[in-house]
Amino acid sequence: MNRDVLHCAKCGTAVEQKIPEGDNRIRQVCPQCHYIHYQNPLPVAGCILTWEDRILLAKRAIEPRYGFWTLPAGFMEVGETATEAAAREAMEETAATAEALELYGVYSIPHIGQLYMMYRGICKDGYARAADESLEVNFVLPDEIPWDELAFPVIRHTLHRFLKDRKKNRFQVFHEALDYRSRST
Amino acid sequence: MNRDVLHCAKCGTAVEQKIPEGDNRIRQVCPQCHYIHYQNPLPVAGCILTWEDRILLAKRAIEPRYGFWTLPAGFMEVGETATEAAAREAMEETAATAEALELYGVYSIPHIGQLYMMYRGICKDGYARAADESLEVNFVLPDEIPWDELAFPVIRHTLHRFLKDRKKNRFQVFHEALDYRSRST
Repeated sequence: MNRDVLHCAKCGTAVEQKIPEGDNRIRQVCPQCHYIHYQNPLPVAGCILTWEDRILLAKRAIEPRYGFWTLPAGFMEVGETATEAAAREAMEETAATAEALELYGVYSIPHIGQLYMMYRGICKDGYARAADESLEVNFVLPDEIPWDELAFPVIRHTLHRFLKDRKKNRFQVFHEALDYRSRST
Repeated sequence: MNRDVLHCAKCGTAVEQKIPEGDNRIRQVCPQCHYIHYQNPLPVAGCILTWEDRILLAKRAIEPRYGFWTLPAGFMEVGETATEAAAREAMEETAATAEALELYGVYSIPHIGQLYMMYRGICKDGYARAADESLEVNFVLPDEIPWDELAFPVIRHTLHRFLKDRKKNRFQVFHEALDYRSRST
């Protein structure tokens, strides 16, 4: 994903990098029409869907992390709620109908400018299949999770926490920062 | 806030409205360089800060809702966590140092494409003053909240829930949709 703004969204003029008056951060500002291009973190919604003791995973058919396993998740669209976005991603990636979705965790991932909203819920009828963006899907037991083949740290963290919470049968909504800002990657 | 994209961020060409191949939504697409301009909800972070039994409110010195009362809140910046954003907004708007921030509630507001992350915490030393974007600040008791002069529905909902939860001394993190999509406003 490349969010660099080179030209003004309003008039097409090449933008300048400057700190607008009254601001304290460098923004992309149009020298012609003075429009300021703010950039904000992107909200992502995803879900852990279970069927009996099993968790639904999907193998990615797209980059980044082609061929690695993930939970259904993707960028929220304008005009939908986070819950709707999580259900839509489950449908698009695994053809699963998400039921009884409840907010489970929020992850700030500042170094890539993302904000994850993770839900937990039930996969209706235990039905899923590889849909758009997935090579295959699988309902895994805890000891079948392919920890070394998970697509992203946020997926590993979510699964790890979920298994711990499920043992206690107590799911407390959390906010966690996956903070790699001081690292080079 | 006007997020309409008229020109390509990459090359400045006037964009077209079309559904990209493999997509199902109308996007702004560049006919020249084929860059697709996705638009996503904007994440907002804010906080309820208390000092003893009182809650910190700020009177807005900017539009929209100039002169109405609000909790410190604002758009998250790329490169910060939601918690950091909430603390930064408190400092910028009320000069308050937020302590012990914990995620309290998440609001999806689909008709305006916003995702609110509300925290609760302590106002260090009970110190606050009107800073940038605020006309004045006030630490209010529950029966002093100016319900008819609050800036936004999300502020009213948060305060209402907080007072109920504080009576029970049980703060459960929630996700709620403030869904006005079917209304004209």
